[in-house]
Amino acid sequence: MAVYTDITESELGAFLRDYNIGELLSYKGIAEGTENSNFILHTTGGTFILTLYEKRVDRDDLPFFLGLMDHLAQRDVSCPLPVKRADGEIIGELAGRPAAIITFLEGMWPRRPTTAHCREVGVALAKLHLAGQDFPLQRRNDLSLPGWQRLWDGCRERCDEVEHGLEAEVSDDFAALEAGWPADLPSGVIHADLFPDNVFFLGERLSGLIDFYFACNDFYAYDVATCLNAWCFERDHSFNITKGAALLAGYQSLRPLDAAEVEALPLLCRGSALRFMLTRLYDWLHGPDGAMVQKRDPLEYVRKMRFHRQIISATEYGLQQS
Amino acid sequence: MAVYTDITESELGAFLRDYNIGELLSYKGIAEGTENSNFILHTTGGTFILTLYEKRVDRDDLPFFLGLMDHLAQRDVSCPLPVKRADGEIIGELAGRPAAIITFLEGMWPRRPTTAHCREVGVALAKLHLAGQDFPLQRRNDLSLPGWQRLWDGCRERCDEVEHGLEAEVSDDFAALEAGWPADLPSGVIHADLFPDNVFFLGERLSGLIDFYFACNDFYAYDVATCLNAWCFERDHSFNITKGAALLAGYQSLRPLDAAEVEALPLLCRGSALRFMLTRLYDWLHGPDGAMVQKRDPLEYVRKMRFHRQIISATEYGLQQS
Repeated sequence: MAVYTDITESELGAFLRDYNIGELLSYKGIAEGTENSNFILHTTGGTFILTLYEKRVDRDDLPFFLGLMDHLAQRDVSCPLPVKRADGEIIGELAGRPAAIITFLEGMWPRRPTTAHCREVGVALAKLHLAGQDFPLQRRNDLSLPGWQRLWDGCRERCDEVEHGLEAEVSDDFAALEAGWPADLPSGVIHADLFPDNVFFLGERLSGLIDFYFACNDFYAYDVATCLNAWCFERDHSFNITKGAALLAGYQSLRPLDAAEVEALPLLCRGSALRFMLTRLYDWLHGPDGAMVQKRDPLEYVRKMRFHRQIISATEYGLQQS
Repeated sequence: MAVYTDITESELGAFLRDYNIGELLSYKGIAEGTENSNFILHTTGGTFILTLYEKRVDRDDLPFFLGLMDHLAQRDVSCPLPVKRADGEIIGELAGRPAAIITFLEGMWPRRPTTAHCREVGVALAKLHLAGQDFPLQRRNDLSLPGWQRLWDGCRERCDEVEHGLEAEVSDDFAALEAGWPADLPSGVIHADLFPDNVFFLGERLSGLIDFYFACNDFYAYDVATCLNAWCFERDHSFNITKGAALLAGYQSLRPLDAAEVEALPLLCRGSALRFMLTRLYDWLHGPDGAMVQKRDPLEYVRKMRFHRQIISATEYGLQQS
């Protein structure tokens, strides 16, 4: 939950004078997202989300994130549409922070994803990858191998506090990932954080994707790997191959994986599990930025790393090869 | 900020089947209130607030709180209207907690109240007192003198950690308040917590009162005293007599204070300041129920207690006697 910055009605009213969305009726801080401050706005023009970008987000990346949403929304990917100000800009400043208004998307994120949800997410991910192909901006993935190494440098000394033996285990993973990480695979714009809380549904119909603040250019199959980690494990930490099959079939219905991607998938899954383990471990050891953020257990992802380590072929994730 | 309990879309969907407010479109936890979990609901029928009552609220008090909102809303006091279920009840159960849906009120609480806001609050408070006169239920004020004594018993040993000498100072206050507390003054239903974050405005027009979860039967003038404490001090802790005069004039435009109330006002202000100092002190020393709640400084109210101690006549608050 996250509202790091409160705003006064007069500064918000002044900010809104640069937009054509009517008069302010109410705004309430919402308990979603962990990086930024988010508010639901009601104006005489409708319902919107206002985001204040806090220090974890680099201001220079905002044109990429917001431009991407705009690009995708215009290509029939259901996601929030950044609202343009009267001067055509989509980024303003409020309470000393960069700020933007995006359209409000109805729908609910699934607390307990079903197989049907997993299929829909697979389809939506492929659609996003295809629709992003002609997006002109580029953003390097800060949280790929070199970024993981930096996080690891800030954690490894103390990581055995979380589980005895973790330091040695993760060091071995790094060695394996550095040795085997693919040099080249089909690449483009990826979401990079498509967890259930970033995907809205109305019933079992996907109504939209949100939170593009980790989006970047990287291997498409790495995004698939992150979704397998985020969607296809059960609460008892077991992998659900039925869900994996549904997610992969949904994805391949629009964008079939090539042989190199299929071959690389287990290592990409392992790398993606390491990436989320590391950010959790880092927050666990260092405390998150605000006292309002609930810490998430890094060990959940250690278990996923162990699972992926013993996978030999992507068919074990449910992949049906055509 | 407060979302203590997350709910799944399926349990919320099931809960809503008892209501006639259409299909669920979205729900988001909001960062308002410190006692309960609150969500903004969008349904095909409109926008609502869903509240899950957490352990600090006594389930037996809910008919009083929700019945009062219903009573006041029907008497032209702008406040949320509890939504009746198909069976006529206004309290249900969700995620193992009592839960209710109320209408959504547009408006914003003033982060920096003006004199005009203070006048409006005075008028609204008197209107509430008058409209509550024929409300049939009763609820004793748990946070009057005996309740303060219980809070104090849980704090006094450690209160010099907050400021040296506080234990002796507050003990003297208790003696003075117990000796001088009025035995009888005009009484009825009071809000008891009408702070700026519980009063919404559109511009300088008051659009509604919320959060009736401390409402009870007590002296009307005690509610006036709480508003003077909550609305008429500046950030530098000085009392703003212009705001005090506006609040009192607004109140008296509908319900003039009688001689005994005027006489008692300084002591009631002192008592009310002690009450909010004590709940803050208690949370400060014991930690609030959830890690998500921001602690508020008890010393702000110690300063207010000191101010009221040296007041001789209610004219020093700006009271114009008719």
